[in-house]
Amino acid sequence: KHILIVPGDGIGQEVTEVGKKVLEKIATKFGHDFTYDEALIGHVAIEATGDPLPAETLEKMKASDAVLFGAVGHPKYDNDPSAKVRPEQGLLKMRKELGLYANLRPIKLFDELLSASSIKPEILKGADILFFRELTGDIYFGEKGRKNNGDTAYDVAEYSRYEVERIGRKAFEAARTRKKHLVSVDKANVLESSRLWREVIQKLALEYPDVTVEYQFVDATAMLLIKDPKRFDVVVTANLFGDILTDEASQIAGSMGMLASASIGDGTGVYEPIHGSAHDITGKGLANPMASVLSAALLLDISFGMKAESEVVINAVDQVLKKGFRTGDIADATTDKSMILGTDAIG
Amino acid sequence: KHILIVPGDGIGQEVTEVGKKVLEKIATKFGHDFTYDEALIGHVAIEATGDPLPAETLEKMKASDAVLFGAVGHPKYDNDPSAKVRPEQGLLKMRKELGLYANLRPIKLFDELLSASSIKPEILKGADILFFRELTGDIYFGEKGRKNNGDTAYDVAEYSRYEVERIGRKAFEAARTRKKHLVSVDKANVLESSRLWREVIQKLALEYPDVTVEYQFVDATAMLLIKDPKRFDVVVTANLFGDILTDEASQIAGSMGMLASASIGDGTGVYEPIHGSAHDITGKGLANPMASVLSAALLLDISFGMKAESEVVINAVDQVLKKGFRTGDIADATTDKSMILGTDAIG
Ligand SMILES: CC(C)[C@H](C(=O)O)[C@@H](O)C(=O)O
Ligand SMILES: CC(C)[C@H](C(=O)O)[C@@H](O)C(=O)O
Repeated sequence: KHILIVPGDGIGQEVTEVGKKVLEKIATKFGHDFTYDEALIGHVAIEATGDPLPAETLEKMKASDAVLFGAVGHPKYDNDPSAKVRPEQGLLKMRKELGLYANLRPIKLFDELLSASSIKPEILKGADILFFRELTGDIYFGEKGRKNNGDTAYDVAEYSRYEVERIGRKAFEAARTRKKHLVSVDKANVLESSRLWREVIQKLALEYPDVTVEYQFVDATAMLLIKDPKRFDVVVTANLFGDILTDEASQIAGSMGMLASASIGDGTGVYEPIHGSAHDITGKGLANPMASVLSAALLLDISFGMKAESEVVINAVDQVLKKGFRTGDIADATTDKSMILGTDAIG
Repeated sequence: KHILIVPGDGIGQEVTEVGKKVLEKIATKFGHDFTYDEALIGHVAIEATGDPLPAETLEKMKASDAVLFGAVGHPKYDNDPSAKVRPEQGLLKMRKELGLYANLRPIKLFDELLSASSIKPEILKGADILFFRELTGDIYFGEKGRKNNGDTAYDVAEYSRYEVERIGRKAFEAARTRKKHLVSVDKANVLESSRLWREVIQKLALEYPDVTVEYQFVDATAMLLIKDPKRFDVVVTANLFGDILTDEASQIAGSMGMLASASIGDGTGVYEPIHGSAHDITGKGLANPMASVLSAALLLDISFGMKAESEVVINAVDQVLKKGFRTGDIADATTDKSMILGTDAIG
């Protein structure tokens, strides 16, 4: 199996190194032959080549069996709304070119982190949500631009039936293997693209009579996720709503630093933390690498079908937490300072 | 002063009646001469006239000094994506026709409700956020429709400079009277309309050097609101992001049933709870009317400049809570059952 490592920007570099080490360890332990290569994306790719997704990186991705990804982004571009070339373009182009239309974001709280969240433990205990975020459509990829001499800016949100159907199907299939409850999130009381979304999910639901479907407006979901996270099992939603809701839901898991994601579709799967490049802590060795480690676990499970190997990794994370080790982001007032470790040490 | 009462749908009817009673009481107590009229909107207007915002309602709104509004919506339309006439169209048309471009949503927790939230009391205590949601632009009002024989649906998000500037200015002015901290929320790493948004706010910021401005991506804000609500003072954002974030932030106040909003702009101001029509509890006398009562308080303050009267209302809500009275939505495990009252009784 050939794995491409794409650390990207900021703490992406630091955490992906730990994720890779875990893959190497698994290969040794289970006698697998994993080979590795590395490639550039985002700000580091712009600096080196002028292109946030160099052709070479894309070719390497297509030729690999799976990609372990870090993060992209740089504050330099955030505060310059007129920048023409941006790190995020590399990420979005990768998603589109690899046909990564389904982004899976499992939100599960390790018991040891019950008190690390800002939400009450009794509200959280037992929460276990699997998000399916559509990843290659919506307002991310529609036409955008300026008119009226630059005084008006627009972005087009767009969905076609087949796009909703293929992500919907994945969500229904997953719900079947879980609690058979699916929440479809849209804003059908305002958006035409949401009305199409709802139509397609309603039709699909007829094929999955064993799954209970609930339709929610995105504003209600944003509220209910915090009020009662346990009422959710599988959630399926559009690209933009998924971006917002999964970041919000990271608080259910105690910290963004614990959340992994899998982007799958037509070809090579890409596995990455849901956190960003976090330039405020870059280079300090403080970043929590567990989201990258858990991304490696998803890679083993989903792209390689290595269930046992994946579980060994998840279990290792659990053991580290059980022993009381923490990174800063998941420490709380009761944590013994000597148990707070940096990126490498906890890795 | 002439006040138009527009209860709309579902629990809108029940809670607005209580809000009106409070206005009547204030008039008596302070010797004001308030006159009232009533008008239809939403589902009830469709049933009566076929139009979710009858011309008569709009005329009455324009002719009044302030509008006390309930809610619109009906499940019948939610599950029928192909319905051509919808209650929400009445609400959106009202916002556009009255030029209500600024929606103010204060999020403040009454001390007595500290334990009613799913968020930990120590995270919440002292949180006090004022949202400015843009209300007449964005993907709500851009072109929308179908193409490819109905197989593709689209919605256009659009902002012009002057739209961002006028709401931005209101937010900066408010920040000046508070903690002088403004968070501007967008998705400038992906959306062109957000890049224009950020450009305009950056330019405005030069006129308000005493206000500290922080720029956040909407996904980060969705996370930070729950992680650390106290880091926010004034927040300004686009229509769709504001819809999602303010519903989410309702959990900071314990319940949506406690949150009022003011929609202001070119003419008559409209005051309404942020909750919806809640057909699941309609007609049961269970709805919490405090958001309507607090909307009446905002009406007195903002449209009539009656600060003292407004404070008397807010204080009355506080006293009711201090005495231990609750509606179901803000009761918790420690609440004495006999203290849980219905809509009228608590009103
Ligand atoms: C960096 C950004 C473009 C990206 C997104 O919005 O998709 C990120 O927030 C994510 O969730 O992967
Ligand atoms: C009913 C709906 C159209 C409306 C909105 O999205 O603006 C509501 O959610 C609100 O926040 O007032």
